Amino acid sequence: MSYASLEKTFYRLAQLDHAGAMLGWDQQVMMPSGGNDARGRALAELSVLTTEILQNPALADDFARAEQEQTKLNTWQLANLKQMKKEWQHATAMPKALVEAISIATNECEYAWRTMRADNNWADFEPMLQKVFDLTKEKAQALNSALGAENGYANDYEAMLDIFDPGTKMSRIDPVFAELKETIPGLLQQITEKQNAASPIIQPSAPVAKSKQIELAKALMGALGFDFNQGRLDEAAHPFSGGVSDDSRITSRYDENNVIEGIMGVIHETGHSRYETGLPKDWRYQPVGQAMGMGVHESQSLFFEMQMGRSAPFISAIAPLVQQYAGNDPAYSAENMRKMYTHVEPGLIRVNADEVTYPLHVILRYELERDIILGSASVKDIPDRWNDAMSRYLGLDTRGDYKNGPMQDVHWPGGAVGYFPSYTLGAMNAAQLHDAMLKQIPNAADLIASFELAPIFDWLGKNIWSQGSLNSYDELMINATGEPLNSSYFIDHIKNRYLG
Amino acid sequence: MSYASLEKTFYRLAQLDHAGAMLGWDQQVMMPSGGNDARGRALAELSVLTTEILQNPALADDFARAEQEQTKLNTWQLANLKQMKKEWQHATAMPKALVEAISIATNECEYAWRTMRADNNWADFEPMLQKVFDLTKEKAQALNSALGAENGYANDYEAMLDIFDPGTKMSRIDPVFAELKETIPGLLQQITEKQNAASPIIQPSAPVAKSKQIELAKALMGALGFDFNQGRLDEAAHPFSGGVSDDSRITSRYDENNVIEGIMGVIHETGHSRYETGLPKDWRYQPVGQAMGMGVHESQSLFFEMQMGRSAPFISAIAPLVQQYAGNDPAYSAENMRKMYTHVEPGLIRVNADEVTYPLHVILRYELERDIILGSASVKDIPDRWNDAMSRYLGLDTRGDYKNGPMQDVHWPGGAVGYFPSYTLGAMNAAQLHDAMLKQIPNAADLIASFELAPIFDWLGKNIWSQGSLNSYDELMINATGEPLNSSYFIDHIKNRYLG
Repeated sequence: MSYASLEKTFYRLAQLDHAGAMLGWDQQVMMPSGGNDARGRALAELSVLTTEILQNPALADDFARAEQEQTKLNTWQLANLKQMKKEWQHATAMPKALVEAISIATNECEYAWRTMRADNNWADFEPMLQKVFDLTKEKAQALNSALGAENGYANDYEAMLDIFDPGTKMSRIDPVFAELKETIPGLLQQITEKQNAASPIIQPSAPVAKSKQIELAKALMGALGFDFNQGRLDEAAHPFSGGVSDDSRITSRYDENNVIEGIMGVIHETGHSRYETGLPKDWRYQPVGQAMGMGVHESQSLFFEMQMGRSAPFISAIAPLVQQYAGNDPAYSAENMRKMYTHVEPGLIRVNADEVTYPLHVILRYELERDIILGSASVKDIPDRWNDAMSRYLGLDTRGDYKNGPMQDVHWPGGAVGYFPSYTLGAMNAAQLHDAMLKQIPNAADLIASFELAPIFDWLGKNIWSQGSLNSYDELMINATGEPLNSSYFIDHIKNRYLG
Repeated sequence: MSYASLEKTFYRLAQLDHAGAMLGWDQQVMMPSGGNDARGRALAELSVLTTEILQNPALADDFARAEQEQTKLNTWQLANLKQMKKEWQHATAMPKALVEAISIATNECEYAWRTMRADNNWADFEPMLQKVFDLTKEKAQALNSALGAENGYANDYEAMLDIFDPGTKMSRIDPVFAELKETIPGLLQQITEKQNAASPIIQPSAPVAKSKQIELAKALMGALGFDFNQGRLDEAAHPFSGGVSDDSRITSRYDENNVIEGIMGVIHETGHSRYETGLPKDWRYQPVGQAMGMGVHESQSLFFEMQMGRSAPFISAIAPLVQQYAGNDPAYSAENMRKMYTHVEPGLIRVNADEVTYPLHVILRYELERDIILGSASVKDIPDRWNDAMSRYLGLDTRGDYKNGPMQDVHWPGGAVGYFPSYTLGAMNAAQLHDAMLKQIPNAADLIASFELAPIFDWLGKNIWSQGSLNSYDELMINATGEPLNSSYFIDHIKNRYLG
């Protein structure tokens, strides 16, 4: 049984992933600064080991024989074989020298980015980013030439999209992003007018101690079904969700003058965590048992944060909890919190953007990175194109402000080209899933208002979490909602919430 | 250069060790209980990977060629080659099936031990321990037959000693332990009489909040040269020192009614940590850059805790700090703390024993495990022999009290046979090193009393920490103190401190 032999190999890789995930979590959350060099070496070696295991020539035989055994495999095994093959093909598609060159260039660029961003130093950053994009172009070419025919890539950039969001093509993104570019500016104008006409938001009158915010975060996580026997909440400069399926580690940051923002951060990360811990347990050490990709992952965090979390019934449900821990301030009335959580305002920073303007930040990045990979733009063009897009999409001037402009994200310095679209695809998946859930659980708003969330989580568990990577992205959405990705649900959601 | 190729292999193993050390730390300190199964799998896979890398047949060639290159190697490289060869020989000496059988049996026995100890259930525990000892005998035989000639083992048990404390032979242990067995009971009697005649110890009148104890612990660690940019202090049920050379993780536990015990625990672990972080940086990813073994490791923690930590000048130096964090209680006067820290009393539990009675706990275990491995005793004999020794050595009855008798330690269920002697060898090394340090730094007591510890740490750094595994155990002690292990320093120390 060569399929069985492949399962053994990928079981081993899952254990190396466990080590990498936990060492990565520790690096962000626990590690003293002096441990960074040693940690970097250990993580690099784990990743080299993973690549070596995947590049073992014996795997080609295993795959050939496993494919002859397909009639003996069940649906999950067949899907697992497909996922294993994809990982293997990715690992063998790139020359070793290129993998190493990318690792060095992205490490250097990401490291330099931390100080150069703070110094607004584009001049010294540009050549380093140029190097990363040059190597990423080589990577995209190598992946496309090795895997393009089998996966139907129309060009090199689609090979990059496929890394982060399997099966996503420009032909899916382009019409959707075109519609958003067309629609959002008008909606934004109407929303702003409506907001300006409403009574002003009441700001909290006193800070909230960090310890209280942590207690509140844990109470909310508990209400959202987070199991503290299988996970932790900690503090980190950049909140994230990490760990493994049985041991989910989420982080938050606390600003004593802004309890409101931290709450939504925790709800967002809890969405990621419930997906990870809800993945099929029997397959947790195999590729088919892993999350589908970044678009689906983000759909779960945004289902929690944007669809459910910022809805009026949810806010009315959490208001008593917020008041219990943060104080009986009029700022924490359900009505005022609803206003805070649905406030829309164009800004320079993507991660601080509301759900209405967020897609425009993503579209700007998508258009730029796509054109660089496909050769119609270069890294030198970034500042001008950034300013041009920000001014057209959001009416903001970013000239000379690199720090809050093209240097604000870690993605490009880290080589994560092709990642940005998944944020907006995730937001649209979330809207579509939420709509489908409402059709099947017509009293969902009442359930949410009374914090009886189990039926909603059961629905997500059945339709998304428990599916792992069994089906394709399209199939997953069709099975859950009756149709593939359809951007109208997101636009309707925006209209309903902000202009309804 | 095949030596260079070996260095590459052992660099990789060091990175796997880093992962294992950090995952092990996290398991004890951070991990939620539900993560244990996944963690166990990841740790097991790392250890299988390590063994596979060491069992790679190509290593035999590398070693053969490296040994032909010896004239080109410097002293450190030669010592490194020796250490690498020892690790390789150990990994290849045992049949794979035996390694796996031991891993399964010790996991099961250790897991069962946790509940069976609490239940005082020897009857169900005995057959599991029997299995572990049976397999350990096979292991000792395999190691002795493969490595005995080269390392001069007199019997199978010496192969086990060599794992934990390289180069330690029964011919070193036996005369020393005989002397301790002969001397300690008489000293104990005199000490008890002297203690009984002294004014009574004043107990603290109020509990000390955990947060204050943590602040105190960190202040003490700072004074002992612990660098918080290269390490952390956390809480764990069983205090230990873990992590890696650049990122040292120590733990403590806090009892609000006993600040006194926790302080010495932290000082002890800080001793382990300073050794680890003081190892030669240039060799931190190679075997020669690692600690010498458990006896030397324990010598450093006991130098900190027993030799320096419980000395009158040190206690007078820390008394103001203790009062600052724990309160101005008469219990925390220097004189009263000195009494508490040098109180001697026979007890059932090894880890709670004072430095006078501790060796007798170790000798009991040494005699038993040695006789079982060499065939003159069996696991069934343990309870009777335990009671017999405890009654002869310490005048205590342990009949029927398995929980506080032969089931109190995790070592045997975990397969760590041959480990116990290193505690007492460490105590004797510590006394001998302390005496040598005093000869070279005659004003050490004054320095300690004024908390000017840098010259003492420099001495330890030069003589022990920076030496890594460059020399043999005997050479290390001779270079540092002028002679190999000599138990008279320990006995003199006991006489001076308790009867002087």
